[in-house]
Amino acid sequence: MQKNASLPVSIYALGGLGEVGKNMYCIENDNAIIIIDAGVRFPGVEFPGIDYIIPDFIHLKNNRNKVKALFITHGHEDHIGAIPFLLQSIHIPVIYAPRLAAALIKARLEERRMSDLANIVEYDENRKVNVDSFEVSFFRVTHSIPDSFGVVVDTTEGRIVSTGDFKVDLTPIGPDIALNRMAQIGDEGVDLLLSDSTNAEKEGYTPSEKNVFDSINEVIENAPGRLIVSTFSSNISRIQQICESAVNNNRKIVIIGRSMEKAVEISRGFGYIKIPDAAIIDSSTIKQYRQNEILILCTGSQGEPMAALSRIANGEHKDIHIMPGDTVVFSSSAIPGNGISIANVVNQLTRAGADVVTNNIINDIHSSGHPSKQELRLVLKLFKPKYFMPMHGDYRMLFIHAKLAETVGVTPGNTFVLDNGDTLVLARHKISRGYSVEHGNIYIDGKDIKGLADSVIEDRRTLTDNGMIAITIALDAKTNKLLEAPKLYTKGLINQYNLETIEECEKIVTKAVNERLYGKTTFSELKNAIREAAGNYMFSKLNRMPMIIPVIMNKN
Amino acid sequence: MQKNASLPVSIYALGGLGEVGKNMYCIENDNAIIIIDAGVRFPGVEFPGIDYIIPDFIHLKNNRNKVKALFITHGHEDHIGAIPFLLQSIHIPVIYAPRLAAALIKARLEERRMSDLANIVEYDENRKVNVDSFEVSFFRVTHSIPDSFGVVVDTTEGRIVSTGDFKVDLTPIGPDIALNRMAQIGDEGVDLLLSDSTNAEKEGYTPSEKNVFDSINEVIENAPGRLIVSTFSSNISRIQQICESAVNNNRKIVIIGRSMEKAVEISRGFGYIKIPDAAIIDSSTIKQYRQNEILILCTGSQGEPMAALSRIANGEHKDIHIMPGDTVVFSSSAIPGNGISIANVVNQLTRAGADVVTNNIINDIHSSGHPSKQELRLVLKLFKPKYFMPMHGDYRMLFIHAKLAETVGVTPGNTFVLDNGDTLVLARHKISRGYSVEHGNIYIDGKDIKGLADSVIEDRRTLTDNGMIAITIALDAKTNKLLEAPKLYTKGLINQYNLETIEECEKIVTKAVNERLYGKTTFSELKNAIREAAGNYMFSKLNRMPMIIPVIMNKN
Repeated sequence: MQKNASLPVSIYALGGLGEVGKNMYCIENDNAIIIIDAGVRFPGVEFPGIDYIIPDFIHLKNNRNKVKALFITHGHEDHIGAIPFLLQSIHIPVIYAPRLAAALIKARLEERRMSDLANIVEYDENRKVNVDSFEVSFFRVTHSIPDSFGVVVDTTEGRIVSTGDFKVDLTPIGPDIALNRMAQIGDEGVDLLLSDSTNAEKEGYTPSEKNVFDSINEVIENAPGRLIVSTFSSNISRIQQICESAVNNNRKIVIIGRSMEKAVEISRGFGYIKIPDAAIIDSSTIKQYRQNEILILCTGSQGEPMAALSRIANGEHKDIHIMPGDTVVFSSSAIPGNGISIANVVNQLTRAGADVVTNNIINDIHSSGHPSKQELRLVLKLFKPKYFMPMHGDYRMLFIHAKLAETVGVTPGNTFVLDNGDTLVLARHKISRGYSVEHGNIYIDGKDIKGLADSVIEDRRTLTDNGMIAITIALDAKTNKLLEAPKLYTKGLINQYNLETIEECEKIVTKAVNERLYGKTTFSELKNAIREAAGNYMFSKLNRMPMIIPVIMNKN
Repeated sequence: MQKNASLPVSIYALGGLGEVGKNMYCIENDNAIIIIDAGVRFPGVEFPGIDYIIPDFIHLKNNRNKVKALFITHGHEDHIGAIPFLLQSIHIPVIYAPRLAAALIKARLEERRMSDLANIVEYDENRKVNVDSFEVSFFRVTHSIPDSFGVVVDTTEGRIVSTGDFKVDLTPIGPDIALNRMAQIGDEGVDLLLSDSTNAEKEGYTPSEKNVFDSINEVIENAPGRLIVSTFSSNISRIQQICESAVNNNRKIVIIGRSMEKAVEISRGFGYIKIPDAAIIDSSTIKQYRQNEILILCTGSQGEPMAALSRIANGEHKDIHIMPGDTVVFSSSAIPGNGISIANVVNQLTRAGADVVTNNIINDIHSSGHPSKQELRLVLKLFKPKYFMPMHGDYRMLFIHAKLAETVGVTPGNTFVLDNGDTLVLARHKISRGYSVEHGNIYIDGKDIKGLADSVIEDRRTLTDNGMIAITIALDAKTNKLLEAPKLYTKGLINQYNLETIEECEKIVTKAVNERLYGKTTFSELKNAIREAAGNYMFSKLNRMPMIIPVIMNKN
């Protein structure tokens, strides 16, 4: 076979396209695969009882010898959360991560006693990494966590740039976004740009964290009593602002919630949050201070029922009970699907006498970490990519981002709105569509780290909407006759005292089973007969299709 | 017993306080009860599989002889939807309703073959009704459905005014709000005002329907191809605008969705929507027209999976398939909890090639039917009530509305944020708190019109989050021994092929059952032993608490 001088490069996502979260992008040639990010997705109500969703790694498992390195853009769960599962599936020779992300990954792996599986190497903007024929370098961006980077991958076929998560914050908390370096990368030539689409529907600019700092500072200065501030524990930049403003306003900080404690501990350890030890007190000592000397920092801004803020709102926290004069600040926005839970917590807090401040009430008490349209245009102008592939977002966000790219210089036809698993092939600075790779969702629930199949989720949805019926029948193996009448147990379908419906259904099932038993039959036929008889009855009577579980006992 | 010259009046809600929907307010003295509205609440995801929630009528049943009349303020489901259930529970001598509401109620009762149960009398602003010692009159308001009224109830003890649902639309579609009449009522003296709190968190004025008309008209004028417009079928004013703009722009109207057909039919029948018959065509004839001659009006603006728009988006509609050039307009806002469903439909439509227009993209493509703060202040200034009770809304909305009332002249201490069942007692123009009345939720699911108990909803939640295990054991009644090893069936908990977990749990249950059987035991003790053994095992293994259903068969 003739050796081809060109070594085509495939680019594809195993997660992050057509969805928000679960980010995992791969760059592959005949010899090597490098991965950018390995995140989880936080499931909404459409995935009942699921803790998170991770990518199916089947394609990487099938090509395990080619996997050379994982690059992490920043330390958020939707970019690092799948690492423990990935390490259990395949060997990753090396993980490159910026300093804070590296610390967060290490902490997570230690918790799970998996530190041995990972070889983590820190990078910053001065580092260049060669992996097989790929040369990888990094540019600093601004985002809601320090140490966020974009990635440049130079291949034999051309240059690929991924922005990672970012916003163009010109007055950031922490270092600037590397606009000049980005311009330089653009001037050198970018073949394919992947850019963050999370806010592609939003006009204008995302407000700076400086605005948020000013708003929060004003609330902290003016609150008459205790302050309870809730935000994402992943929003390290925000936590930093809140803590520093608390100290400036002579308030002691009480941290509630395990993930918040961990976030503050790691960030302080690495110098991202600079406050003296004496500024942090335990919730049990809160009564030693005046009310306007206290700031409580906690999780639960999404109304999560088990999080600190919900427990405080419900009066379930051992030390902290809401009282009139308290001010509660939600420094966050509602993730779609969480509106009702958040409203419940806000109602509880108001009922208990707190003054509740949300983004609806005071502007800029929260700002997104992602770029709005004007920032997206700017980045496209800086990089001037020949081809463009929007990433991070559901279909509509990607679509709008692609259309926007065409208004600022990308040739129509050179933008690609892909699904997970779709591939682009880069060969000699030209891009075409390639074959798809295997991909999918794995559902993680409790301790069952192997993940759940789609069918289990489907079962849960059926149970949710319609409840279930278990129908037990006992057969005499010798005579092939019913030993007694079938028994019916329902949950989540009808009221327990609705005996009429239960008895009528039992009769109908008895009849159906006896008809079957009259001739020769199999267990599976019998089960189907039970399902059909009970199912038809319940549908005609209740207009519902409960899950029906036939249980057959065969007695000698 | 001495006859008291004063006949104190109780005011309370059986629904509508601390929630959005299920509106039902009662005014009661020793001789009579009159009811204002009887609505349903549309449940969110926290009530799995439930169609709607209605008030528990237990208090009215216990006082059935005192119930004299039901007054309906307007024809929306959250004000009329519970009427069929109410009529099945108690006799209502007469229902007073404005013209359109009366037509909608009649249509609903005919559908259910219940017309005989109702005596419906139409009212308008010129009508005065005497019920026992209550004199009831009405003032016209503007809202998102024609024929919306507020109610004035004059009692021996003082005057009570309820706004019903309203907004102060100064350029409405249809008749004006009766501001001068409201001022006159206020000048005559109002003891207690009940006012709509739905938008009490919103600053300023709710935009007029005129603005919405202009926005919709612009979209209809400029759409290059077919137009698909989705809105609430209850929003008759909006539907009127859309239909009339379609006719003005030479587009034929295709109506999809049963509730939308019904809404248009009734509204046209009563002259609320004025379009010629020829303007409406059947979806099967759509291909006889050019694409820019078509406007499709449909339900599904909340992303409801079974509604017309979802079926169109998913390619499941027999005549209408999305194609590039289509413009889809959501003339609606997202009800909390529906964000994800709506996003799914928007993504599907975009993927199929449609240009999707929502309130995020074009301002004023939708406007609320409820008053913002500035309108609430105006109405409080007009009525100048001595006492104030905010209604329609969750706790926070009511609370904010009460605080607002205190800034425009209501004496602090004279505002009452109540829960359903709480009573106010009006005696000689003075208000105090009274005893609570019985109240609650009834859950309506499918055809089971008797309603479901809270426990069924609780079961569904457990099933949703954790799935279930049915464990069957067969006992020999003579020897009190297991006939065979317990069998375990799971749904929605673990993958079916996870045999290891199932077998291990079966062993643990066998052990627990045998230990119990060793001594004397009851079925209920045995069931508890099974629940405990299996529950502990699953929690330690999976961190989950599935519903456990023990089934015991006792063989002779």
